[in-house]
Amino acid sequence: MTDAVRLHIPIDLRWGDLDAFNHVNNTSMLKLLEECRVRAFWAPESGEPRYPTAVVPAGTELLTLIARQEIEYLRPVPYQSDPLDVQLWFGRLGGSSGEVCYEVYSPRAAGEQVLYARSSAVIVFVDAASGRPVRLTPEMRAAWEPYLGEPIRYSRR
Amino acid sequence: MTDAVRLHIPIDLRWGDLDAFNHVNNTSMLKLLEECRVRAFWAPESGEPRYPTAVVPAGTELLTLIARQEIEYLRPVPYQSDPLDVQLWFGRLGGSSGEVCYEVYSPRAAGEQVLYARSSAVIVFVDAASGRPVRLTPEMRAAWEPYLGEPIRYSRR
Amino acid sequence: MTDAVRLHIPIDLRWGDLDAFNHVNNTSMLKLLEECRVRAFWAPESGEPRYPTAVVPAGTELLTLIARQEIEYLRPVPYQSDPLDVQLWFGRLGGSSGEVCYEVYSPRAAGEQVLYARSSAVIVFVDAASGRPVRLTPEMRAAWEPYLGEPIRYSRR
Amino acid sequence: MTDAVRLHIPIDLRWGDLDAFNHVNNTSMLKLLEECRVRAFWAPESGEPRYPTAVVPAGTELLTLIARQEIEYLRPVPYQSDPLDVQLWFGRLGGSSGEVCYEVYSPRAAGEQVLYARSSAVIVFVDAASGRPVRLTPEMRAAWEPYLGEPIRYSRR
Repeated sequence: MTDAVRLHIPIDLRWGDLDAFNHVNNTSMLKLLEECRVRAFWAPESGEPRYPTAVVPAGTELLTLIARQEIEYLRPVPYQSDPLDVQLWFGRLGGSSGEVCYEVYSPRAAGEQVLYARSSAVIVFVDAASGRPVRLTPEMRAAWEPYLGEPIRYSRR
Repeated sequence: MTDAVRLHIPIDLRWGDLDAFNHVNNTSMLKLLEECRVRAFWAPESGEPRYPTAVVPAGTELLTLIARQEIEYLRPVPYQSDPLDVQLWFGRLGGSSGEVCYEVYSPRAAGEQVLYARSSAVIVFVDAASGRPVRLTPEMRAAWEPYLGEPIRYSRR
Repeated sequence: MTDAVRLHIPIDLRWGDLDAFNHVNNTSMLKLLEECRVRAFWAPESGEPRYPTAVVPAGTELLTLIARQEIEYLRPVPYQSDPLDVQLWFGRLGGSSGEVCYEVYSPRAAGEQVLYARSSAVIVFVDAASGRPVRLTPEMRAAWEPYLGEPIRYSRR
Repeated sequence: MTDAVRLHIPIDLRWGDLDAFNHVNNTSMLKLLEECRVRAFWAPESGEPRYPTAVVPAGTELLTLIARQEIEYLRPVPYQSDPLDVQLWFGRLGGSSGEVCYEVYSPRAAGEQVLYARSSAVIVFVDAASGRPVRLTPEMRAAWEPYLGEPIRYSRR
């Protein structure tokens, strides 16, 4: 299998993402990935989507839950004003779930990019009222299949 | 006194800024203002500053502390993908402190803008080692005086 | 008017409340006050309330919104394992709103207590479906009037 | 190998840990685990440690970094006023690192406990000045070995 096409989501750090060690806190990193996921996959309430993958209806009727997440932190991340370059693709598409893969890089503009972290999350779509899983629609599959590639292989597992 | 020139800082919401009421949480709003303050006033560690007011040396030797803050929430803020338009100016410049004024508006692109919130914060510059206030430098005064204007008058105080 | 009876709410810091300056971040302080407000005023979904003031029905039908908040930071707050002592009372009770006053002290156990911060927030009760204010019930008034006292006078306003 | 002795750390939720889905946000869960780790392992600046495992010198000279973390969310966590029961043990002790294992349960008081989440984190001790790993001291090993047990086996990896 060849490498998937990847989405590149630029995401701004906030100084408040730092902890007392003056690095981006490890839980803040997951907050950034959450935001990338929302931007990548949720259809905006109005206006044009920024990414062709943004087809999940926004709102609170269809919940996007995280079933599991794994993350490997490779280098401390300092505060910086240019947006990080988060790269996303799918490692797997299931019946009502999918595995989202992420690599977090230093800003695109800044010469050779540093890989800060790698992560993968299993997301499950659930109906808020019934609590039951909801199957991926044909529209979701069509939008996401071009971004389906190799899952992450963690070096230190 | 005529209205000050205002800085316009575009700031991205994160879905994680919402609380269980599905609005931007009131404390998240202060987090956004904190980030605007950092971008507006702190010199980047490398590269060009984005704003002419960004003259405070970054790092952890010179602390920017908040002595007091006041905020008026005018309308609930929904999650949205375009950046909010935060407008900043100074209401006062003191010896080692200043009052930063903020108005938080809906995105600039989206027709008539809605005013979501108004806030002001007294910031004090303090030396991290000694804990003592540090006087504004001539460079800070020169950079900030064009943005000095009327303080906010709160309607419901 | 004599001093109101005050509620004492013990609240644990989290190390994650610190920012890169190694102090409790100013927005984290509001997060602590939010949690104290929830514990003080919301009836638990099951079991006995811990405070006689906990009479607001929990859930997301009745929203407790913040209309304005003011806070004065008097001293930096370090991380510590004993819970802070947050003292609450009402500065005012209106038709569908109230002003909650807070003083944040160092832990009760630790000898003479240090006053870290003072704050007040105007809260408004709003019906989630209609977006309209909801009047305080007789039960709320009865529960809260013993805690009605002098509003905070800010020294540096 | 028999089951390790486990530490039980009671940890309070905050209403602010919820997200717009009205459940504890998945990143907030990691924030809770971070706080449990700090309480379990860091020696308090003054006073008696609450846990026999609290032997890591607090402060910002010795950094406790997360090299990797894995988490499995088994059930949505509602806001509740009683503290969750987080159980901790070591899955491995290395030269300058260790694997901390966690199971997050509903409050101890409330009848049969529900397992909400399972997680493990590889922590590495690093000298802040040099950025180099620091070896576990004999005191750390002595304090932690009673809590060394089976690593978590994830069901859905």
